[in-house]
Amino acid sequence: MVKIATIGGGSSYTPELMEGFIKRYEQLPIKEIWFTDIQAGKEKLEIIGEMAQRMWDASPYEVKIHTTLDRAEALTNADFVTTQFRVGFLNARIKDERIPLSYGMLGQETNGAGGILKAFRTIPVMLDIVEDMKKYCPRAWLINFTNPSGMVTEAVVRYGKWEKVIGLCNIPLIATMEEPGLIDKQQKELVYQFAGLNHFHWHKVFDLQGNNVTRRILKEMMEKDAGLPKNIFSVPFFEEQLDNINMIPCGYHRYYYRQEEMLSHSLKEYQTIGTRGEQVKETESQLFELYKNPELHVKPEQLAKRGGAYYSDAACATIAAIHSNSQTQIVVSTINRGAVPDLPADCVVEVSANIGSTGAIPQAFGCFNAPEKGWLQLMKNMELAICEAAVTGNYGLALQSFIMNPLIPSGATAKRVLDELLIAHQSYLPQFEATIRELEAQGVEVKDEVSRQIMLEEQGG
Amino acid sequence: MVKIATIGGGSSYTPELMEGFIKRYEQLPIKEIWFTDIQAGKEKLEIIGEMAQRMWDASPYEVKIHTTLDRAEALTNADFVTTQFRVGFLNARIKDERIPLSYGMLGQETNGAGGILKAFRTIPVMLDIVEDMKKYCPRAWLINFTNPSGMVTEAVVRYGKWEKVIGLCNIPLIATMEEPGLIDKQQKELVYQFAGLNHFHWHKVFDLQGNNVTRRILKEMMEKDAGLPKNIFSVPFFEEQLDNINMIPCGYHRYYYRQEEMLSHSLKEYQTIGTRGEQVKETESQLFELYKNPELHVKPEQLAKRGGAYYSDAACATIAAIHSNSQTQIVVSTINRGAVPDLPADCVVEVSANIGSTGAIPQAFGCFNAPEKGWLQLMKNMELAICEAAVTGNYGLALQSFIMNPLIPSGATAKRVLDELLIAHQSYLPQFEATIRELEAQGVEVKDEVSRQIMLEEQGG
Amino acid sequence: MVKIATIGGGSSYTPELMEGFIKRYEQLPIKEIWFTDIQAGKEKLEIIGEMAQRMWDASPYEVKIHTTLDRAEALTNADFVTTQFRVGFLNARIKDERIPLSYGMLGQETNGAGGILKAFRTIPVMLDIVEDMKKYCPRAWLINFTNPSGMVTEAVVRYGKWEKVIGLCNIPLIATMEEPGLIDKQQKELVYQFAGLNHFHWHKVFDLQGNNVTRRILKEMMEKDAGLPKNIFSVPFFEEQLDNINMIPCGYHRYYYRQEEMLSHSLKEYQTIGTRGEQVKETESQLFELYKNPELHVKPEQLAKRGGAYYSDAACATIAAIHSNSQTQIVVSTINRGAVPDLPADCVVEVSANIGSTGAIPQAFGCFNAPEKGWLQLMKNMELAICEAAVTGNYGLALQSFIMNPLIPSGATAKRVLDELLIAHQSYLPQFEATIRELEAQGVEVKDEVSRQIMLEEQGG
Amino acid sequence: MVKIATIGGGSSYTPELMEGFIKRYEQLPIKEIWFTDIQAGKEKLEIIGEMAQRMWDASPYEVKIHTTLDRAEALTNADFVTTQFRVGFLNARIKDERIPLSYGMLGQETNGAGGILKAFRTIPVMLDIVEDMKKYCPRAWLINFTNPSGMVTEAVVRYGKWEKVIGLCNIPLIATMEEPGLIDKQQKELVYQFAGLNHFHWHKVFDLQGNNVTRRILKEMMEKDAGLPKNIFSVPFFEEQLDNINMIPCGYHRYYYRQEEMLSHSLKEYQTIGTRGEQVKETESQLFELYKNPELHVKPEQLAKRGGAYYSDAACATIAAIHSNSQTQIVVSTINRGAVPDLPADCVVEVSANIGSTGAIPQAFGCFNAPEKGWLQLMKNMELAICEAAVTGNYGLALQSFIMNPLIPSGATAKRVLDELLIAHQSYLPQFEATIRELEAQGVEVKDEVSRQIMLEEQGG
Repeated sequence: MVKIATIGGGSSYTPELMEGFIKRYEQLPIKEIWFTDIQAGKEKLEIIGEMAQRMWDASPYEVKIHTTLDRAEALTNADFVTTQFRVGFLNARIKDERIPLSYGMLGQETNGAGGILKAFRTIPVMLDIVEDMKKYCPRAWLINFTNPSGMVTEAVVRYGKWEKVIGLCNIPLIATMEEPGLIDKQQKELVYQFAGLNHFHWHKVFDLQGNNVTRRILKEMMEKDAGLPKNIFSVPFFEEQLDNINMIPCGYHRYYYRQEEMLSHSLKEYQTIGTRGEQVKETESQLFELYKNPELHVKPEQLAKRGGAYYSDAACATIAAIHSNSQTQIVVSTINRGAVPDLPADCVVEVSANIGSTGAIPQAFGCFNAPEKGWLQLMKNMELAICEAAVTGNYGLALQSFIMNPLIPSGATAKRVLDELLIAHQSYLPQFEATIRELEAQGVEVKDEVSRQIMLEEQGG
Repeated sequence: MVKIATIGGGSSYTPELMEGFIKRYEQLPIKEIWFTDIQAGKEKLEIIGEMAQRMWDASPYEVKIHTTLDRAEALTNADFVTTQFRVGFLNARIKDERIPLSYGMLGQETNGAGGILKAFRTIPVMLDIVEDMKKYCPRAWLINFTNPSGMVTEAVVRYGKWEKVIGLCNIPLIATMEEPGLIDKQQKELVYQFAGLNHFHWHKVFDLQGNNVTRRILKEMMEKDAGLPKNIFSVPFFEEQLDNINMIPCGYHRYYYRQEEMLSHSLKEYQTIGTRGEQVKETESQLFELYKNPELHVKPEQLAKRGGAYYSDAACATIAAIHSNSQTQIVVSTINRGAVPDLPADCVVEVSANIGSTGAIPQAFGCFNAPEKGWLQLMKNMELAICEAAVTGNYGLALQSFIMNPLIPSGATAKRVLDELLIAHQSYLPQFEATIRELEAQGVEVKDEVSRQIMLEEQGG
Repeated sequence: MVKIATIGGGSSYTPELMEGFIKRYEQLPIKEIWFTDIQAGKEKLEIIGEMAQRMWDASPYEVKIHTTLDRAEALTNADFVTTQFRVGFLNARIKDERIPLSYGMLGQETNGAGGILKAFRTIPVMLDIVEDMKKYCPRAWLINFTNPSGMVTEAVVRYGKWEKVIGLCNIPLIATMEEPGLIDKQQKELVYQFAGLNHFHWHKVFDLQGNNVTRRILKEMMEKDAGLPKNIFSVPFFEEQLDNINMIPCGYHRYYYRQEEMLSHSLKEYQTIGTRGEQVKETESQLFELYKNPELHVKPEQLAKRGGAYYSDAACATIAAIHSNSQTQIVVSTINRGAVPDLPADCVVEVSANIGSTGAIPQAFGCFNAPEKGWLQLMKNMELAICEAAVTGNYGLALQSFIMNPLIPSGATAKRVLDELLIAHQSYLPQFEATIRELEAQGVEVKDEVSRQIMLEEQGG
Repeated sequence: MVKIATIGGGSSYTPELMEGFIKRYEQLPIKEIWFTDIQAGKEKLEIIGEMAQRMWDASPYEVKIHTTLDRAEALTNADFVTTQFRVGFLNARIKDERIPLSYGMLGQETNGAGGILKAFRTIPVMLDIVEDMKKYCPRAWLINFTNPSGMVTEAVVRYGKWEKVIGLCNIPLIATMEEPGLIDKQQKELVYQFAGLNHFHWHKVFDLQGNNVTRRILKEMMEKDAGLPKNIFSVPFFEEQLDNINMIPCGYHRYYYRQEEMLSHSLKEYQTIGTRGEQVKETESQLFELYKNPELHVKPEQLAKRGGAYYSDAACATIAAIHSNSQTQIVVSTINRGAVPDLPADCVVEVSANIGSTGAIPQAFGCFNAPEKGWLQLMKNMELAICEAAVTGNYGLALQSFIMNPLIPSGATAKRVLDELLIAHQSYLPQFEATIRELEAQGVEVKDEVSRQIMLEEQGG
């Protein structure tokens, strides 16, 4: 009988996680689930705790939900630890998005300047959790779906020296759900091979006769503008480029392949309806209103509309596959082991893997062609630079990772954006404290009004 | 409905292949099976053809067996081509074994001097078959279990430029059948990870809780002298070495880890009951007597006693897994694609793979420790040298591969053994013709009497 | 006695080349020098031929200058072939610069969109020359200083299958001349190690006690704004970034590290005094006026002011070092052979090398840190994509290389710039003819007026 | 003015070292030389100290020789530390040779079982010295010519974390001295490229026109049986093999390419005139008699006859090249940095290098063909296993390295030889103490009488 500990239990996604566990109970017989969160998330934690208990009570299974602010208590003897927290909550995401955009530069949750800062905030917290796991549940698996999932997983392995970790993402899952229909197939009639990095992978698709049907799907995707996650603006890829790649890029590749249009769309939202973070914050607040309803015991439909849909489902599927050694193919962030030979064997990649009792065994993908290889090697080395900067607080390296990032035009503005972001997130960046003090002394201030307001609130609180 | 073509259909193993297909008919609905062989194998081909038809007739399925000496006819529109021939029949094996042993040096079917010569004879024939496949069945899979299976697969990929090939071996299958019992487990309660080269791989074993149980199995293997193929003399491994490796070597590693004892055992057999090839020739002749019996319609028990048991079963399982896209884990020789990062991504390795409609997707194994890495890199480079020598007939490279081979002490005797083997097998080595003429001019003659006798017969025939 | 053949002999740089040969005559005893050029360069070829002969006549050495439009004649039995041509002359460079800038995007001779198109024009011509060399001077060395020098060298090796080639650049030479003074040293008191790619390398500097003095030089370069080639706008690097790199970037790194400022500077020139190409065209025309002077027999001072100063000097030094086997350290583009282990051993890199009778032996540099490694791997793979597109005329791959290029923001504008450039350079891009026809059919037209004018002239001529 | 510290100063090679320094005084102005040794070497240390002082006194230079048993004193503020000691003196070598030979297996100073044990004895002592250097002369260069020179250098870098180390060998030096004459050339008329491992490298030779003259030299070497070090029995290589390699193997390759003959020669010496160690011991004792002569102030001719001739000369040349930043090409053991791309960039290789103020910059050699690549990768991984076993005392790994060694046929005898060697050398193998106690408890005893006698003496002393 299994014990699950969920860090960031107060997340609005948790009901999806519960639904996933209920659905797979026969394969994964859970005894107890512990939700833990920080003091500032206490209220949400309790709302979610009650909601989750109602979901289980409405199921045929007897599972006890516990909520606690004591992480040690939640972790003790856990079999699986899931992480889904957001350091600084959605407010941090809003700053990640708005500050770059205030300088005409892409700010995004996991890409561009925003993604780098999210890594800086998240990695030290995750490494703390790993230290706790070494103490309280040294045999547990860490199932991470906190973004940026790939870099977080890399840091856990490289700096946390913890190999029992699997990073998850909903993007591949959505692809395998949406694409078959485009060519009148069922999901089970296609064979998928994914490889790359989190939010930066490609995949090939084959039918049951072994034919490569990738081009057919690409053609339909182009024509029907379909097959991609809802949370990414849908500018079409260049057909001639896809033809050369002959693999299906992930939705996030739009940021790299159609930088101009993606930026322009983000700027338009920034100037009108607000950034994605601001929109999601609204959705989230509505969700919590729903969750408070003591009659509600099913995941509300509204949750599926968020970008993160199926994230938790991927997590449940992974946990169940480990527990039951089902050797199911799932796309996860895990140690490369050679599966992507263009990257070092010891780094973390996102790749189709067999999931079973030993964790994730990546399926070897083979070498990429020059363009994809170049992109991957750049991005992985940027990730490594970001992870190191996140751990050491080395400002020069942080600046290097900004300059490497293909979505950040290098120069004075890039440096200014980095500096403002460091200042804006200072409550969550102890490793950069000396730098931040210096920047403040130089008079650097956050220009974006909404972000300033958030800072004031945070300092007030 | 599937068409199978079996090259070397007159092999005594064919009834096992039929049994394997009958067992898996629901998963692999076969319409017709074509056996083809060379003129010299015509009689056996017909005996086997009739035996096979009887087996199918006794089954609930309607499958037609065809025999033909016309390879093109057999191949035309085949879905799967299986290869199980032996260039020069068992007589060639006997020479491979006896000539080195006549100089106190190991001769073995796939290891040492014998294995190198078998590659020299087999690879050109296999490349011919591949050329025929390009003409007559360009969409077919080549399922090879002709030894040396790894090198043959390498040559098909590298020189035949044919990627739809899978090389098979029975050794891993036997391991997964024998080992669970040693620690009171069922096969399905263990998870296996194999990697290396054909007849030169190691594996790790885990239980359903993800615990590495390799040491427990090693301990039992040492104590019970169990878990290994019947055709390899069972000198125990050094316990301290296994402890350092912490993986289970394959049976053939005995030749490399206990060279002294294996050689001494081979020499004893050579001097008394005859080499393995001579023993097998006897068994084979008995088998054909049985096969002639028009009442017999099941695989005789005697066949299971041969070293090759389960070879055909592995082939049937692989074909069925491709046809039904079952994604079953089978250990096969296939293109590395990074699964063994210590070897180039484009060479052939033997590794746990998912078998499905796209063929074999190797499971990434990760890096080896220094000793196993060194061994692997030596052996793979030796294989590459052998393949190139087999294709080009380059004598200097053939000599280099002899000198690299860990089972052949370099020096004048090694060269003499190579020279005698080239002469002894001259009917099957057209690529080395110029060299052979020169050696004959130098007066090199085969010393071993039995081998000379076989040569005389061959030349007479 | 040595025969030199200079392709693009009518270049304004040729007098520098002559000066270099005269200076090194004792080490490199030349018998004859052949200048060849295309019909359109005939007049300049003759002016240069006479100027060059005057330079030699004024020297103590008897060397005969020949000019010819027959490349075969020039190449026959040459010992060294130098290439310094510009397909489409300076007008092509002007289009490379202006068309991207007309869309607010960097156009530059070897970087960004301009550099890619220059490769597309130059590589096929260079491969033709190599084919001629195979016929007329199969033992000669090809000493290339036609830009983009690194990619041209890569294409010669990879597609021309010609390994006796060395690519040159003046940037490293200038560094080793300028930097010692910054820390009050002589050139011979410092030891340099360069590695990377052409126009994208870094170097470390040591003193005679083995101390790494790189930081000291960097500090002085920042403070004195010194040490860099004259033809690159001198925006300072970020100090914190240099501190993290701890190597000296090359001047061209400014485009990548300070993209914003470099673009803004280029745009300003474009809108005011004209692009660099337009400026150089003016200088060049003045130079030819000088060269016509039958009294002139020394390289005029004005030549040194061009960005290309010392380019020819590097070439002379290299040729002399090969001829005299001096094992001099020169920074060249050559086959990697492992010197930069972060890139494949068979690709071309720019690296400190020993130059002697066997050509260039690169000095092993060792691994880079993550940021530099990521940059290099991206840039090399982009170069490989560009080379392949240059050879095949594959439009999808051309688009991929644009999208990979860090100086080109991907999207509709990037594609438009590519399309206009293909059209603008159509006289020199036979491999892209089908694509160009299609683009014209779609109505794509060159927007920049100056570029249109040049096109009209070209079509008129 | 330079301070040299020589560890193992009492070595009979020291006069050659002095001669080398005297010859290069202008390039390397030495102030003082300190010889240090262990208590058991005190007498020799003093003889050598006086001899060395006489040599300097007879020179035009004023250099003071100091002898001391206090290593710290010798090291303090040294600029260069040379190491030329032999743990256990020649007696240890005799055991390394005789014990394997007593079982019909090769024992040799740096190859086979003997070389492994020499590494086990030497590496821990060298790592101790490195710790002292960190304290007493942290800026000094360690110039090692203690064998096995490659593995010792590897251990210093890998386990000692000390990168200012260069390993030396006389073999390449002798090649470059002997080979030119074979084709009527001067040394300066040829260009050499060496790569591989210490005592396991190959080289190519070119003339001043860049022609590869390797085959010409190989042909002459075969015909004249020339060009190889005096201390290696001169069985000829196979011509066909050399032809395939197209590089010149080093003399030690005979052990690997002509194993049979080399073993048979060693056995014959063992059974008659005694092993090489026994012969050398005799020579050494004569040398010391000469050294005692207060009139002697030049290196006696007898020294040149030892296998180690030119070893010290290589050391002096290296030190002078570092001190004067001469960028001379010398073949040394140093960190690969990619020069041999078939081996990891961070391991130690033996390769042509530029020697200057930053130490050794290896010249990139490029990839090897399959046979040489396989050999190298095996040997390097064996070296890594040996180094790790030397540091950890891991018996299983020691056994693995025996089994990997191509000169040791694996099996019970191999294990017995390892066990006897461990016991025989127990005074010098503290890291293996537990294993040795256990072996003694099992009753393992040294069979070879001479070795037993040495052990008794050692225990008596």
